[in-house]
Amino acid sequence: VVDVEDVEIVAEYCDILQIGTRNMYNYPLLKKVAKTNKPVLLKRGFSATIDEWLLAAEYILSEGNFNVILCERGIRANSKYTRNLLDISAVPIIKELSHLPIIIDPSHAVGVTKYIPPVSRAALAVGSDGLIIEVHPNPEQALSDGQQSLNFEQFKSLYEQLTVETITKTYV
Amino acid sequence: VVDVEDVEIVAEYCDILQIGTRNMYNYPLLKKVAKTNKPVLLKRGFSATIDEWLLAAEYILSEGNFNVILCERGIRANSKYTRNLLDISAVPIIKELSHLPIIIDPSHAVGVTKYIPPVSRAALAVGSDGLIIEVHPNPEQALSDGQQSLNFEQFKSLYEQLTVETITKTYV
Amino acid sequence: VVDVEDVEIVAEYCDILQIGTRNMYNYPLLKKVAKTNKPVLLKRGFSATIDEWLLAAEYILSEGNFNVILCERGIRANSKYTRNLLDISAVPIIKELSHLPIIIDPSHAVGVTKYIPPVSRAALAVGSDGLIIEVHPNPEQALSDGQQSLNFEQFKSLYEQLTVETITKTYV
Amino acid sequence: VVDVEDVEIVAEYCDILQIGTRNMYNYPLLKKVAKTNKPVLLKRGFSATIDEWLLAAEYILSEGNFNVILCERGIRANSKYTRNLLDISAVPIIKELSHLPIIIDPSHAVGVTKYIPPVSRAALAVGSDGLIIEVHPNPEQALSDGQQSLNFEQFKSLYEQLTVETITKTYV
Repeated sequence: VVDVEDVEIVAEYCDILQIGTRNMYNYPLLKKVAKTNKPVLLKRGFSATIDEWLLAAEYILSEGNFNVILCERGIRANSKYTRNLLDISAVPIIKELSHLPIIIDPSHAVGVTKYIPPVSRAALAVGSDGLIIEVHPNPEQALSDGQQSLNFEQFKSLYEQLTVETITKTYV
Repeated sequence: VVDVEDVEIVAEYCDILQIGTRNMYNYPLLKKVAKTNKPVLLKRGFSATIDEWLLAAEYILSEGNFNVILCERGIRANSKYTRNLLDISAVPIIKELSHLPIIIDPSHAVGVTKYIPPVSRAALAVGSDGLIIEVHPNPEQALSDGQQSLNFEQFKSLYEQLTVETITKTYV
Repeated sequence: VVDVEDVEIVAEYCDILQIGTRNMYNYPLLKKVAKTNKPVLLKRGFSATIDEWLLAAEYILSEGNFNVILCERGIRANSKYTRNLLDISAVPIIKELSHLPIIIDPSHAVGVTKYIPPVSRAALAVGSDGLIIEVHPNPEQALSDGQQSLNFEQFKSLYEQLTVETITKTYV
Repeated sequence: VVDVEDVEIVAEYCDILQIGTRNMYNYPLLKKVAKTNKPVLLKRGFSATIDEWLLAAEYILSEGNFNVILCERGIRANSKYTRNLLDISAVPIIKELSHLPIIIDPSHAVGVTKYIPPVSRAALAVGSDGLIIEVHPNPEQALSDGQQSLNFEQFKSLYEQLTVETITKTYV
């Protein structure tokens, strides 16, 4: 959602509302979205600090909507090989400062298909509560973000690397 | 090692020579260290790009010393909660561009004891060939870097989370 | 203005509408503000690129409102002595890429009263079309941004440094 | 100078020794250069803080060589249009913290010929004690840094903009 005027219609058809990185500081939108009582996925702003991100979450919580999921999606950096720079330590920091769940978006963080599997494994290993991964039946034909999308086979292969059982054995 | 004049004496007593982040661009030192034929641990410069880091490694390789280990130790960033910002995607990028092994230094990257275990797990999960972790019998009395050192018990606990067998099951 | 619902009432009483740094990517707000036909002061986002900033301006221009003034107010950086990092080269870059006027906000860029006069002089020297400077009758009592506000006397002194004669006397 | 072993021979033929950005943290080199008693131009490291820069200067001063000139040459940033990001507020900050003279290197800071004149004017206006500008008789044929070099005519034109009268005419 990017427009306060669209919130209601979007909420009617969606199970969860995402606030994108460009709108993390858009407080009227946060409040409007909160009032739908739908779960909200709050992406971290491009260069937002941890504190600013948690304070943005407060705009939603203070409306009585407690279903907020934080999403780390990489911060601005000067890199030739990746789209953004994943701040992986954000996960244990958020775990300490807040009770909110946090997931990682490796697709936007690295922006390149081939680096998504290792970074996804790292995300779970650091304690992320989940992942949001871009998948497309034919990434080369995707209208947007094709270069960071997995096709179905790549996703299946990644998924198998991330099964409950193996993760359980390792990290719990 | 920080001084070219000390290289020989240090090499006489050490099994491996470390080039710290402040000296990654110190090419005469890199060449001098290379000539000892000791393995060299080359830390990434504070804000060095991946390309600059690999080119620094070339100064060592071009002297005929092929025992170079790269070490990602976090880059400069504007964070209240960590000392630096770990660039975890550096591992798969280096794996693609180079044959050199790469390890991660979570101690300098996050700089805070409590965040070192989760970040160490992430480091192995992303494919790091190893870890370099600061340990001190009594971190509160350490002359330097105490706030980022594990004591023996903390290290033992971390080590058990990182055993070969479990990692093998998950990631290979 | 931060809320699309407030745009009309604000436009009724103000001569110019400012889009703050947190709202540069708030496209519905940009479009709503554009439609008032009031001049719009568009601040650069915290870590916005030059291209993103100019594209944000396009959201206003494309509604037929051509009275857009760009405002450089410093970008996020890791500095102990200033609040942000003034990107002074943004001025000649914008002058080359666009016909839009650009002004500098030294108050937010440096965030410390004592550094505002020299940075203001530099802003004019680099070709800025103007300055926006925070002034308060009693900065120590200001409800916000007191530490970066000039009092009347400081402003008068700065103003005098920005006239022809004083520039001559000072810099040669 | 980049090599401690070259310091003496270089000092024999040069009036001033420059420590480049890659060597700001090279403390043995700083000490060796200090001992020549030649003036030292100490460039700021790629991502060095103001404090680190002043402490690097201390390595020279503490050898009894007080002829240190600091040089701001832009810090690492994510910009498509310039090579680095000039930190112009470094000048008044250094003026407050230290007695050392500070000059600006617009050539490395912006890295593009056309932006050097306006940034040079800003440098003087902010209080810089001088400028270091790359000039080449034929920049297109330069072995290095041609894209940021002025030819003789461009330099003459810039020089004339930096005299009293032109500043008056231009900025008021």
